[in-house]
Amino acid sequence: MPVTDIATRVYNHGWRLDPVVRSLLDTDFYKLLMLQMIRHLHPDVQATFSLINRSKSLRLADVIDETELREQLDHARTVRFSKKELIWLAGNSFYGKQRMFAPDFIEWLADFQLPDYELRTIDGQFELQFEGPWTHTTMWEIPALAIVNELRSRAGLKGKGRFELDVLYARAKAKLWEKVERLRQLPDLVISDFGTRRRHSFLWQRWCVEALKEGLGTRFIGSSNVLLAMDNDLEAIGTNAHELPMVLAALAEDDAGVAAAPYLVLGEWRAHYDGNLLIALPDAFGTTAFLRDAPDWLADWTGFRPDSMPPIEGGEQIIAWWEAHGRDPRTKLLIFSDGMDVDSIEAAYRHFHGRVRMSFGWGTNLTNDFRGCDPDGGHELEPISLVAKVTSANGRHAVKLSDNPSKATGDPAEIERYLRIFGQDGRVQQVVAV
Amino acid sequence: MPVTDIATRVYNHGWRLDPVVRSLLDTDFYKLLMLQMIRHLHPDVQATFSLINRSKSLRLADVIDETELREQLDHARTVRFSKKELIWLAGNSFYGKQRMFAPDFIEWLADFQLPDYELRTIDGQFELQFEGPWTHTTMWEIPALAIVNELRSRAGLKGKGRFELDVLYARAKAKLWEKVERLRQLPDLVISDFGTRRRHSFLWQRWCVEALKEGLGTRFIGSSNVLLAMDNDLEAIGTNAHELPMVLAALAEDDAGVAAAPYLVLGEWRAHYDGNLLIALPDAFGTTAFLRDAPDWLADWTGFRPDSMPPIEGGEQIIAWWEAHGRDPRTKLLIFSDGMDVDSIEAAYRHFHGRVRMSFGWGTNLTNDFRGCDPDGGHELEPISLVAKVTSANGRHAVKLSDNPSKATGDPAEIERYLRIFGQDGRVQQVVAV
Repeated sequence: MPVTDIATRVYNHGWRLDPVVRSLLDTDFYKLLMLQMIRHLHPDVQATFSLINRSKSLRLADVIDETELREQLDHARTVRFSKKELIWLAGNSFYGKQRMFAPDFIEWLADFQLPDYELRTIDGQFELQFEGPWTHTTMWEIPALAIVNELRSRAGLKGKGRFELDVLYARAKAKLWEKVERLRQLPDLVISDFGTRRRHSFLWQRWCVEALKEGLGTRFIGSSNVLLAMDNDLEAIGTNAHELPMVLAALAEDDAGVAAAPYLVLGEWRAHYDGNLLIALPDAFGTTAFLRDAPDWLADWTGFRPDSMPPIEGGEQIIAWWEAHGRDPRTKLLIFSDGMDVDSIEAAYRHFHGRVRMSFGWGTNLTNDFRGCDPDGGHELEPISLVAKVTSANGRHAVKLSDNPSKATGDPAEIERYLRIFGQDGRVQQVVAV
Repeated sequence: MPVTDIATRVYNHGWRLDPVVRSLLDTDFYKLLMLQMIRHLHPDVQATFSLINRSKSLRLADVIDETELREQLDHARTVRFSKKELIWLAGNSFYGKQRMFAPDFIEWLADFQLPDYELRTIDGQFELQFEGPWTHTTMWEIPALAIVNELRSRAGLKGKGRFELDVLYARAKAKLWEKVERLRQLPDLVISDFGTRRRHSFLWQRWCVEALKEGLGTRFIGSSNVLLAMDNDLEAIGTNAHELPMVLAALAEDDAGVAAAPYLVLGEWRAHYDGNLLIALPDAFGTTAFLRDAPDWLADWTGFRPDSMPPIEGGEQIIAWWEAHGRDPRTKLLIFSDGMDVDSIEAAYRHFHGRVRMSFGWGTNLTNDFRGCDPDGGHELEPISLVAKVTSANGRHAVKLSDNPSKATGDPAEIERYLRIFGQDGRVQQVVAV
């Protein structure tokens, strides 16, 4: 039996708060890439981000105490980039490139603080909104999701006995390791951790990342979590997200401007980044429509990240598009990242192997898969479908159609308008699990 | 009672080795400053460093197992600078200066490995020597001392019960905190941690540094330990050491060259560094002799680090020298770093306050003061006087006279010769406690 370390015990029990977010690098890498561009091109745009619980049957505010949530959000607002973190951002190479972040951007980050939030509880759900400059509200997406998800995990763990907790984590570890053993069978697998926003907890994500590093070796190429990438000498992974076309479309003056927005984003992006960062995300307003109207030069980009369309169907559409543009798909890259787990990774890997380069971003089912692990048989630790999306830009509604109508977000009348602009082609209703 | 974490327990008990040195930044900052200069000016000099146990009555090899010592030395040779560490060295500012370390030096560090060692046990003492290029053997000084000291601590802790250990560390913490409370009474105190080489253990040094950071606030300016400075966003502190004049004197062709060596070092140093790094270490061959023959331009330097002369006597000699050169001592800096503890810090502070700027480097008595803490009443954890000194350069004897004849090192005949060259003025025998 170990000695009880009295000082540590008293210190632990005296904690006002066990923070979920202790570093502003505890975010996804693509937020930093996008932020640098947003600050450069759109410094005056006001954007509102909102928490959206797609698992509507779960009354989140009945599970998480609002005061606790406020304490965590308030704490995150006190965190600043540390000197060591800024030095690393400035000095590390990303995607093989030195000085990815310009000195004036790093200087600007030194003063960065998460902006204020608005939180209300209505009918068992939280209304959590972040209003202000896009350059600031965008940075709430990941910490807000990580905080709500971890507080939900903590609520689900409360009241469990010591041995129950021990068994719970033992099962989760065993479950992840079985997945690792299956993935090891895929010799050319390229996979990374995309699980920050939906993780069970920070410590659990760290365990998962370290387990993949040991278990998958060179098949595991890195983490989207910048802090974990830094601390484990891993590559930071990520490119861009739906908020870029969503905001540019919202800012457009007319329907033609909305239709052009997804390609305007590509132009802005290639003016800032190159090489393996030239990855297009085609599904904000439907992949089929995106490919139909895409400019020829997009075929020169490194690849696509099909997101909300089923992986095989999305990949086939993109491969057909490359071939129609006279490109050899074997030189191109597809990044699959939508709710992937071992089954769908294996299926996509086997289906496309040899025809195209592939990379997998493994998220919720990596860092928050406690299904069947609870010794009480409860479901409180199973993941829910929670997102934080941009909902308006300069006072206008922002919309996402997605390839899956269940994932559409925005004002219903605006969704109708966007559907008229982009069409319904290729959109297929699917159950959103995570 | 906490749950026994079976996985952690098995992992801990299965350790082949609990390494003392896990990072090449776990060294004193001045080694890196000196190394950059040595590599630039003296890349071909061969230098031997040797472990010297000045506490001769302690038969170290009876306390520390030679095999364990070899395992730790071998492990240190496997450690490389990590990417994160090199990025930090390149990107951090030191002494207010950006890019202190040149890019080609950082690149060279990326391949750096500690060179081989020779270890024999003779009559209860270790003969531990490092032979090879000065650019490599110099880097053994701190890790070799830290390893031997921590292995001695571990030997002293072996066999103690759980509660004995708990009480031991509780006493040591209380003892340090009493010192902190006394030092807080000195409003203009400027103090830093110089305790890496003689520390009880790495974890204990880290505790001490974090305690000073919390307890002394801005009075605590940083740590000579580069790793702890990085991890705690503290300043890395340090300038230069005796090995520079010792090697240059050893390389001299005749007595005149030996006499000129201490000033040749100063010229080399000021060609590489400036500002608050212009600190002269006067006592390698006696402070009195050094000041007598020092060039006038040295009065333009920021300050001195009187080392082996009693602080007040050394400080007074230096102040008199500044005044004789028409300088106002109140604009100058004295750094006291020889076996300081609270009593001697208070005495020097009170004696010189208002007459000169002061800074204290607190070493052994900060990071290894377990006197009176052992519940068994033993003395195994009290610090010993262990050094690692350069003993030859390009095959010639290297000598240190010091202000204290008890601290002289080198071949007896050579010591006699150096005493003829520099004289005996001002040298006073004192007991070497640590």
